[in-house]
Amino acid sequence: MYQSVIFLAWALSVSALDNGLMLTPPMGWLAWERYRCDIDCENDPKNCISEKLFMDMADRLSEDGWKELGYVYVNIDDCWSSMQRDKDGRLQADPKRFPGGIKKLANYLHERDLKLGIYGDMGTHTCGGYPGTTLDKIELDAQTFADWEVDMFKFDGCYSNSTEQEKGYPLMSKALNATGRPIGYSCSWPAYQGGLPPKVNYTQLGEICNLWRNYGDIEDSWDSVIAIVDWFFENQEVLIPAAGPGRWNDPDMLIIGDFGLSLEQSRSQMALWAIMAAPLFMSNDLRTLSSSARAILQNKMIISINQDPLGIQGQRIVKEKSGIQIFWRPLSKNTSALLFFSRRSDMPYRYKTSLSKLNYTTGSYKVTDVYTYETTVLKDSSEFVVSVNPSGVVMWYVSAPAKLNSRLYFRGGHVQDFANEDNNNDIPYLL
Amino acid sequence: MYQSVIFLAWALSVSALDNGLMLTPPMGWLAWERYRCDIDCENDPKNCISEKLFMDMADRLSEDGWKELGYVYVNIDDCWSSMQRDKDGRLQADPKRFPGGIKKLANYLHERDLKLGIYGDMGTHTCGGYPGTTLDKIELDAQTFADWEVDMFKFDGCYSNSTEQEKGYPLMSKALNATGRPIGYSCSWPAYQGGLPPKVNYTQLGEICNLWRNYGDIEDSWDSVIAIVDWFFENQEVLIPAAGPGRWNDPDMLIIGDFGLSLEQSRSQMALWAIMAAPLFMSNDLRTLSSSARAILQNKMIISINQDPLGIQGQRIVKEKSGIQIFWRPLSKNTSALLFFSRRSDMPYRYKTSLSKLNYTTGSYKVTDVYTYETTVLKDSSEFVVSVNPSGVVMWYVSAPAKLNSRLYFRGGHVQDFANEDNNNDIPYLL
Repeated sequence: MYQSVIFLAWALSVSALDNGLMLTPPMGWLAWERYRCDIDCENDPKNCISEKLFMDMADRLSEDGWKELGYVYVNIDDCWSSMQRDKDGRLQADPKRFPGGIKKLANYLHERDLKLGIYGDMGTHTCGGYPGTTLDKIELDAQTFADWEVDMFKFDGCYSNSTEQEKGYPLMSKALNATGRPIGYSCSWPAYQGGLPPKVNYTQLGEICNLWRNYGDIEDSWDSVIAIVDWFFENQEVLIPAAGPGRWNDPDMLIIGDFGLSLEQSRSQMALWAIMAAPLFMSNDLRTLSSSARAILQNKMIISINQDPLGIQGQRIVKEKSGIQIFWRPLSKNTSALLFFSRRSDMPYRYKTSLSKLNYTTGSYKVTDVYTYETTVLKDSSEFVVSVNPSGVVMWYVSAPAKLNSRLYFRGGHVQDFANEDNNNDIPYLL
Repeated sequence: MYQSVIFLAWALSVSALDNGLMLTPPMGWLAWERYRCDIDCENDPKNCISEKLFMDMADRLSEDGWKELGYVYVNIDDCWSSMQRDKDGRLQADPKRFPGGIKKLANYLHERDLKLGIYGDMGTHTCGGYPGTTLDKIELDAQTFADWEVDMFKFDGCYSNSTEQEKGYPLMSKALNATGRPIGYSCSWPAYQGGLPPKVNYTQLGEICNLWRNYGDIEDSWDSVIAIVDWFFENQEVLIPAAGPGRWNDPDMLIIGDFGLSLEQSRSQMALWAIMAAPLFMSNDLRTLSSSARAILQNKMIISINQDPLGIQGQRIVKEKSGIQIFWRPLSKNTSALLFFSRRSDMPYRYKTSLSKLNYTTGSYKVTDVYTYETTVLKDSSEFVVSVNPSGVVMWYVSAPAKLNSRLYFRGGHVQDFANEDNNNDIPYLL
């Protein structure tokens, strides 16, 4: 069953945008969810949309162990520009908030081995009311971004209709390529067209964009995360084949480290985004991030799952009435990720299953809990119990069939020797 | 406006249950939300409903600084009893899970200056299917609890109808009083009748119960907290006069330290429960509580607001379209609590107002942020800005008019001297 999904994904993965970029999901930082259109630098100088904010975040990505993990993009969103184009019709940064201009900011990032992303909007205005990019301005704006040495461009879609979008999004792709500068291209187009065929053509999107927003904006709440997750997995048959190296579905930013998620929920967002092969753009305050949020965002095993070179988006394989849902993502080297997620709101739930029930083939598997680093060897037929916290996850990295070593079973963290593995009362208890 | 609310509350406060108990809202720990009906001691020995669980929590309350703050009740909820009454028709604890029996557990608590609460259900069965207390069993069960030296009793209402409840709840009140042992009496009656007049008679409840559940059970989620808060404040005109020393509305347990609330949301629940003069029953694992959850639950200033001897339940005084809501609770010695709450899910919101706009009379007030302990002096007419995080609060303890000391104004935490207080650009910035 999974093999067929893999082959289907490969069969459809022939045509990604030909700029050679983002062969794994892009990672970095994006201003919008946390900082919105805060332009009040007089009263809120630390948080307003200004070159200072992006330089601050660049310093943190560079000095606090982020860029080594892959978080290299620092992305501007809406409200960066002046309300007027310049005398030559080009976009220009707000002179008060970006006194050095965008090119200087790009240099600041490049000196630190980071990349700069910028934002525009297909239409008469951006969503925040700043100058938009109408069809006649597409080439000029693409060239402006290339001149500024920008590395990524998010093209939003407020104030344009579907006919204009149908022309504009491909045109911008061509225009960016024509500049000769490799610029990662993020398209909001499908989100404006409901995210589903026939209005959305994912084959075409894979040919013109590196990533695309399929669904509404994330907000700083668990309800928002859940709405996104539900939509993505309810439509997984459409979305999984669309994704692959160089072309990614984008469920929007990570809000870990902000105000609305509990520790469990933060772990859940990170794990679910890894299963989805989603771009990992944090939108938070890296200057004041808690150590627990940092530990989640810097979890190497989850990042390596997210960044798996096969780039196959994972799927939901079980949806229990109890509220337990199970997700699976095939990874390179015959490994996989397995995620147990609880939608309950009462207490930790003890879920009993076996790898063979989850369609793993006969054999023994090495299983590593990505949050605790506990390792176990499980036979496909062995029943086990995972205890999943309310709104929390248990995520496993499952590696290729290995020889069974019965001394490696765990029960509540203690190594035990299971003399009689057929004894049903002695099922290994994981986490 | 507030004066009239105070007098109304006093006028209605003549008749509380005459057992002299709970003159301030009771505080302690209650098993239900976190441990439910987990009776699987074989597979989940640390968390199952057993004497061990309650002794563990008693140890923690006693040794970790809780009881000194007022958290003295350790309350059993459903699923503690045997499925059968004993040969004399009396309730009995499950012999496997409570081998020492309830009286021995009560002794264990009393030795530590703690109190024991127990649970029963008006009706044929408890909600969990254990033996209920039908009308004919009320006196026997009350006497059993007194014999066991229990200190509090929660009377749930599954499997009884409104006619039976109308008889049973007052009858249990009399029966508990008749034992001669002071037993705090928690009535779930109003929650089964929709919580509002004419079905619910709050005057009568104040005469027979020390506290009562008005609304549905809390769950481990922010949505659940919000549903409760909205219901309580939408019906504040009915609920505020019902509360007072010895008789409390009960919005249900604190879920701080569990899995569903962020740090901001945890601070919000604690603050809102203090405004509501709500019983503070934690339902969490005190053995593994994080230091951040502990700091919130052990916040002395918020506890003293919750425990104010006047016992006047607070009210919502502002509900802005922006999502900012403001709550106010009058306290003894001419002081008050003021709470700014953000229902937004984007970013910190800068809310501008003045104490006079919030109906404070002319004068200068000393204002202390209960979470940061920052203190400021504010004239009623001075405009100020509070920055409220998404799903978070800013809570102030406001003390009696004090002499203005202009050097105590804060802006971003730095003491400033406001030479010209009429300069609108120089409004004090709190928190």
